Amino acid sequence: MPSENIAVAIEQLRELLGERLSTGSSILEMHSHDEAHSTPNLPDAVAFPENTQEVSQIMQICSANRTPVVPYGIGTSLEGHVIPLEGGVSVDTSRMKRVLTVFESDMNAVVQPGVTRVQLNDELRATGLMFTVDPGADATMGGMAATRASGTNTVRYGTMRENVLALEVVLPDGQIIRTGSRARKSASGYDLTHLMVGSEGTLGIITELTVRLVGQPDTISAATCAFDSVKEAVDSVIMAIQMGIPMARIELLDQVQMKGMNIYNPDMQMPEKPHLFLEFHGTEAGVAEQVEMFKSASEEFGASDFNWATRTEDRNRLWKARHNAYYAGKALRPGAEGLVTDCCVPISALAACIERTNEYVAQSGLLAPLVGHVGDGNFHLLILVDTASEDEMQRATTLAGQVSHLALEFGGTVTGEHGIGSGKRKYMQDEHGAAYALMGMIKSSIDPLNIMNPGKVVTVE
Amino acid sequence: MPSENIAVAIEQLRELLGERLSTGSSILEMHSHDEAHSTPNLPDAVAFPENTQEVSQIMQICSANRTPVVPYGIGTSLEGHVIPLEGGVSVDTSRMKRVLTVFESDMNAVVQPGVTRVQLNDELRATGLMFTVDPGADATMGGMAATRASGTNTVRYGTMRENVLALEVVLPDGQIIRTGSRARKSASGYDLTHLMVGSEGTLGIITELTVRLVGQPDTISAATCAFDSVKEAVDSVIMAIQMGIPMARIELLDQVQMKGMNIYNPDMQMPEKPHLFLEFHGTEAGVAEQVEMFKSASEEFGASDFNWATRTEDRNRLWKARHNAYYAGKALRPGAEGLVTDCCVPISALAACIERTNEYVAQSGLLAPLVGHVGDGNFHLLILVDTASEDEMQRATTLAGQVSHLALEFGGTVTGEHGIGSGKRKYMQDEHGAAYALMGMIKSSIDPLNIMNPGKVVTVE
Repeated sequence: MPSENIAVAIEQLRELLGERLSTGSSILEMHSHDEAHSTPNLPDAVAFPENTQEVSQIMQICSANRTPVVPYGIGTSLEGHVIPLEGGVSVDTSRMKRVLTVFESDMNAVVQPGVTRVQLNDELRATGLMFTVDPGADATMGGMAATRASGTNTVRYGTMRENVLALEVVLPDGQIIRTGSRARKSASGYDLTHLMVGSEGTLGIITELTVRLVGQPDTISAATCAFDSVKEAVDSVIMAIQMGIPMARIELLDQVQMKGMNIYNPDMQMPEKPHLFLEFHGTEAGVAEQVEMFKSASEEFGASDFNWATRTEDRNRLWKARHNAYYAGKALRPGAEGLVTDCCVPISALAACIERTNEYVAQSGLLAPLVGHVGDGNFHLLILVDTASEDEMQRATTLAGQVSHLALEFGGTVTGEHGIGSGKRKYMQDEHGAAYALMGMIKSSIDPLNIMNPGKVVTVE
Repeated sequence: MPSENIAVAIEQLRELLGERLSTGSSILEMHSHDEAHSTPNLPDAVAFPENTQEVSQIMQICSANRTPVVPYGIGTSLEGHVIPLEGGVSVDTSRMKRVLTVFESDMNAVVQPGVTRVQLNDELRATGLMFTVDPGADATMGGMAATRASGTNTVRYGTMRENVLALEVVLPDGQIIRTGSRARKSASGYDLTHLMVGSEGTLGIITELTVRLVGQPDTISAATCAFDSVKEAVDSVIMAIQMGIPMARIELLDQVQMKGMNIYNPDMQMPEKPHLFLEFHGTEAGVAEQVEMFKSASEEFGASDFNWATRTEDRNRLWKARHNAYYAGKALRPGAEGLVTDCCVPISALAACIERTNEYVAQSGLLAPLVGHVGDGNFHLLILVDTASEDEMQRATTLAGQVSHLALEFGGTVTGEHGIGSGKRKYMQDEHGAAYALMGMIKSSIDPLNIMNPGKVVTVE
């Protein structure tokens, strides 16, 4: 039973949206959780707006009735971002999924928040342009902006932070604002675009995004290579970056993860050693040069078993395998759930941080394959647990906490790309100190009723 | 005579800083203006802190006494940013000018706010790394971050927005916060770094910056080439960008500016036609390829008179001439002052916007050479005026206003890189609409007494 104010809001929302306001149990259930293992909580209703004006009206109603609002993309977040901790209305943007305009000369596009990254690239194919941010899931653009997502080619093209030029946002009181223009730069006022990117739906709902596109490269070459140790793999990446090789992708998979890969992809038998998965973009001559430079740099650190994929289908298979790392890891222990960590440190600290991480993994007695966006200093453990075992869950939680503390000890962040949600709020004070209180002040000034995704990112007194 | 509360603050500051709190008239005069033509106003005192703790103590004193504080770098701003409109204390960071640490493997550096860009690059020379943002003036890092500055190679390496990784900031109440870490990315909480970058000293004082460095390129090649029209020059740039040529610099100078160049640099006689000044960075083979691609693209638009500078001294002369464009422009009319505009639009709109601008210039009857960071869609008019002539000043102000309105009409911003200060506040409502009020709310929540650089960027009720 919703509380009285929420019930009033739902009544008004039904008047506004008709059948696009749902209280059906399967719809509520679908909006009660994300992809991570955590305790679900049902919203009282789910709204399916079709345009910005409707989002604004929804916010006006919810604001007038102090009803919590949780923006929802496609539910692939990993820190409980979309869980309606206090009930209220989940605002599902799946009916706002149009690519509105592609500005080819300017190399940017204006899209609605429900557009997914794969959809956008499908629609861009004929233009010769592409959108680069590629988290594992086929997430929505709104969700990716809200969580400041990144992916395998962030090392070259940046995260959502670098790829969102401007936003249209509906504020908690229903006001519609635009944060910036399509100009490539501006020195005009506070950077509200970046304030909204990564705010996880706690400051407003993103209703339109202007995103940066880049040219599809003339030539692409991908490869895998093996190393005797994670340290040697990492050191070769640092050297390659310092040499200025503009690698498009450079991903680390440790020996445990490779074992899972081999199980999950029977057609991809590779040595059970730490690997780098690489991609180079450029002109034909440029790519050839990059490849040569990388080979000579990495061979100093013992790189072996180079395996080149220049045909599109081979490349696609390679990156599909990388994007499926989560499932491949889980193949190591069928039936287990995966608990994912997200440590990101300065790359000079990465090898040492991973070494310490592996000590903690050994102490935990758990199986935890490791994959890393090593060019960004970011790596994930996939801690495999039997969720029915209290002891294992305890050990997994301890291990995840240890990794987060390592991130801070090595001068990094507890989350490179998954975000804070409710799962990592406990680390915010340690990571940000006095700056955390400032975040709370900003939240309170923009959302004084604390109705936007309450319980996420910040603590409101 | 300072007001009573300010007098009390000054007394307390003198106790704290001794001779590093100055009320000498020449020091006050120096901190009463910036490089632009506008009405100066004296601070009541100038403080010269030597470390973050002192800045914090200064802010505590000024906050307790409701005394305005204006952060001061080296005074090269162009929109009145450092003018103490309401008196108070100018906080001069010139005694905080140490490069604290260079992290070579991570390719970043931690510096104090008074470090200038030339100083930083001098200190970096032996490392093989460089800091890329290069506004015309040898500005301080603190000032450049505060105004979200950019420069001639922003087209490749970004503005201060992309090159500041983290900040230490003293808030109006004296609290010291850190906005982020040295990790290359993070999804942890609100992006306070970007909120502070471009806030022009209205939210706090920057006391430390972590900035991104890039490798000094193996090979550099620079060139100039001429076109029959500005439109053809711009179109060739758009094509080059779409072809993915990673130009490091691409600058437009119109025929009027070229005439000034020829007067100011007697050793550089070049055709009085629109020119592009270019630079390419990369490996030897990569640069050769870029040059070839650019030549073939631009020749489709009639590029001629290519003039290559591969020797370091020739390149330095070329870019020195570009950085001195302001003085070269003024050479067209000795004794005149320059009023600088800063329009930035999507590059697809740039040629049309410049065409309209030139119509307004013709109507004004004034001489106004044009230079542009054309790869960013950003251009400046240097409107040459006899400041003693009320009629000319009126016409110049009208022209500058027309250019700002053109920026908005073409979907851009009234300032690509100079900032708002007090000079462009009048356009903020038009440019940002409802978002402008949100900026004011953020200002009020962080600086409730409105003591940080009052009268700049935002309007506080």
